[in-house]
Amino acid sequence: MAISLGDAAGIGPEIIAKTFAHHPEQAKDCVVFGDARVLAQAVQALPQAVQRQIAPVNDVNQALKLPAGVIPLWQVGTLDQPPPLGQVSAASGRLAADCVRAAARAALTGQVQAVVTAPLNKTALAAAGEDFPGHTEMLQFLAASHLGLSVDQLPVRMMLANRELRTVLVSIHVSLRQAIEAVTVENVLQTLRIAHASLRSASGGPPKLAVAGLNPHAGEGGLMGREEIDILAPALAQARDLGMDVSGPFPPDTVFMRARESHGSANAIDAVVAMYHDQGLIPVKYLGLTHGVNVTLGLPFVRTSPDHGTAYDIAGQGVADPASLLAALDMARFLAAKAF
Amino acid sequence: MAISLGDAAGIGPEIIAKTFAHHPEQAKDCVVFGDARVLAQAVQALPQAVQRQIAPVNDVNQALKLPAGVIPLWQVGTLDQPPPLGQVSAASGRLAADCVRAAARAALTGQVQAVVTAPLNKTALAAAGEDFPGHTEMLQFLAASHLGLSVDQLPVRMMLANRELRTVLVSIHVSLRQAIEAVTVENVLQTLRIAHASLRSASGGPPKLAVAGLNPHAGEGGLMGREEIDILAPALAQARDLGMDVSGPFPPDTVFMRARESHGSANAIDAVVAMYHDQGLIPVKYLGLTHGVNVTLGLPFVRTSPDHGTAYDIAGQGVADPASLLAALDMARFLAAKAF
Repeated sequence: MAISLGDAAGIGPEIIAKTFAHHPEQAKDCVVFGDARVLAQAVQALPQAVQRQIAPVNDVNQALKLPAGVIPLWQVGTLDQPPPLGQVSAASGRLAADCVRAAARAALTGQVQAVVTAPLNKTALAAAGEDFPGHTEMLQFLAASHLGLSVDQLPVRMMLANRELRTVLVSIHVSLRQAIEAVTVENVLQTLRIAHASLRSASGGPPKLAVAGLNPHAGEGGLMGREEIDILAPALAQARDLGMDVSGPFPPDTVFMRARESHGSANAIDAVVAMYHDQGLIPVKYLGLTHGVNVTLGLPFVRTSPDHGTAYDIAGQGVADPASLLAALDMARFLAAKAF
Repeated sequence: MAISLGDAAGIGPEIIAKTFAHHPEQAKDCVVFGDARVLAQAVQALPQAVQRQIAPVNDVNQALKLPAGVIPLWQVGTLDQPPPLGQVSAASGRLAADCVRAAARAALTGQVQAVVTAPLNKTALAAAGEDFPGHTEMLQFLAASHLGLSVDQLPVRMMLANRELRTVLVSIHVSLRQAIEAVTVENVLQTLRIAHASLRSASGGPPKLAVAGLNPHAGEGGLMGREEIDILAPALAQARDLGMDVSGPFPPDTVFMRARESHGSANAIDAVVAMYHDQGLIPVKYLGLTHGVNVTLGLPFVRTSPDHGTAYDIAGQGVADPASLLAALDMARFLAAKAF
């Protein structure tokens, strides 16, 4: 698996160094796509007893042959010196984007099965003249280009997960009014297809997908909105005809609770399909952000990331918690394990 | 405090009997508004050692003088026999409505400070020719009539609470499209006024109210919807001018998590104002329904209820859990304690 460095001025390098230092099992078979000096700086900030060696590689097989505890580094870019910590800079934005491109190339050419991305800073990306607001759009563009498709031909969906709940979103960064307009038979069916395909292998069979309604009480038979009758029912019927295991639409206020309670049982719900950003993200984030994982579904490779930002305010202080990156590595391994 | 019997064919009488049997401290100073034979039937289904005596009262002072462990019953209606358990009947619908009316009258005339309502069945209410879909509308009508107001002149809001989170809703049983239209300066300000007034006494000062945005990321400066700028900002400014302690609008996906985490701290958020039904109810219900309490704010008395229905399917089996009724009693005591 590839781990991209993220913004060098943020906590990305630190949480990567801590992962190799304290959790070598979870870092197994991972290659860091980044800059050697930036990573070395993060390693040297750790207690001496857990300072791992960094070994440059330019081939994944080399990395697999390294002794346990050595950090395989695929050098990206030609920085003169590490960018200043905690500050927006074009240099760190450019390096971060170049690391994502290099990791994506390795995934698209079959050298790695998954890309786990440390956090980017949007402002630094923009300062470097990078046009993408974030990872998702960049990876979608790179994958579509590689496959000779337009971006529209490679629809992706965001999944947010913690240890107890996974939720896949029909739409994300649009207003609530626009999110309602995005609840169409086509978009809901596309979301179900992508979720089904992405989770099928890992689930060892058709994943159980529960679909939330759009309206309170899932519309209560049309009394509080008709989208469940006019849009969700036909979309779910088509999905079932295609062999998917989908249930719903369920009242939104209890479907996430039920999915959480089903976790670990024989009839566990593998993911809840949410109709809009906050419907899905409120429950996933409710118990805290420590173990949140952001997943892009629909790409030709597995992509996960920790669900936090660059945290410039604490960069370099040694206090960044790698828990969310560890969860992202576990999720990538889970999704990739049987998929390839 | 008054406890109304609820639907006699459901679990209401059983959870009331269990409350007096097993939790006499929490039932202290409570009078049951109901039918003596229905309640006796529920008492007799309990193990003999905890079967409490029922004492008829028609004056609250009588009830306060009874020895601990005796259930004060304010007889309502003239049923020949208890309605059959687990079945919709006009008789149980009529009795349930009459109990609510009697309890509300006691509250409106200052005999009790709070009304805690056991669950109703909508179909039974309708079978009895009662026009109200539920408690909230009935109590709003009774209170407005008593005060010589129209229902519109006595706006109420629903608060749902568990042990860690309270959320007050701008709108409830309307479609998501209509809920967006209901996000107006007037409705938001009204919600803040009602929440502030209802929680002020119990909080021992101006309650801390956090307001959720309507859109993802609270609109992110207008990029994902303008309601935060055009509606919420002016409503919050007016509320602050009126001396309320309001903050926000906050990104909806983390404000409930933050409120939960603040619970018990010096700067605890007393309630989150949610823009629509599921935004507020998804987080309150996420950890389970056992301790959920439904509260009607804006009435001239305190009204709480357990957050579950009549559960006809388990009525009379002795397995109903009184936890949510107990939580409703605690909440009523909390809200009423300093309010009167």
